[in-house]
Amino acid sequence: MIIKHYTDIKPSTYTGTPEGVAMREMITDRDGAPNFSLRVFDIQPGANTPFHSHEWEHEVFILEGSGTIRTEGAETPFERGDSVYVAPGEKHCFVADPGTPLQFICVIPSKNQCRT
Amino acid sequence: MIIKHYTDIKPSTYTGTPEGVAMREMITDRDGAPNFSLRVFDIQPGANTPFHSHEWEHEVFILEGSGTIRTEGAETPFERGDSVYVAPGEKHCFVADPGTPLQFICVIPSKNQCRT
Repeated sequence: MIIKHYTDIKPSTYTGTPEGVAMREMITDRDGAPNFSLRVFDIQPGANTPFHSHEWEHEVFILEGSGTIRTEGAETPFERGDSVYVAPGEKHCFVADPGTPLQFICVIPSKNQCRT
Repeated sequence: MIIKHYTDIKPSTYTGTPEGVAMREMITDRDGAPNFSLRVFDIQPGANTPFHSHEWEHEVFILEGSGTIRTEGAETPFERGDSVYVAPGEKHCFVADPGTPLQFICVIPSKNQCRT
């Protein structure tokens, strides 16, 4: 059993880290986790993750703040307490509302911890 | 892309639901999620999940409250903002502190949504 507090984990740095986005890898295969990784994202007010797609899914839970998820042809608002499922191959980005920081959990399948 | 708010999901009922424990299945294979399921647990003050082990891992993030995780020979306190990794086969239970409700996310591999 392993416990780590959010404040003990430094944000990961990786190629193409978007401006205003910090990702903390809380549980990964480096902890022995065999199947998936749990990360916490902090997005500055008005900032956003890249609009992109990839072969793996996202399972997201909104911890703080509010924003919009942009997908192909749609913009859908979300708030604290929402879960968001993004399917493999689906284009998406998360945009924080202006004036409020956004924080969410994002779980992905293991293999590469810097997958965003 | 699927969005669901925590308050839109009814707690699941299953054989042996512990007293004072509610599990909401936010994202599962019924949403098309191929690999893992994201659930939210609400534990009444002083209540606990069963002390047990199983072949699958838990990846947990504490949303609200505080408590203790009991493992074989150890009791480890946790609080809001902690992540907890429980390995496959490891005996464990989550105990909410008296006087405060406990809420956490628990992610498990897919297959059986009522796995606790």
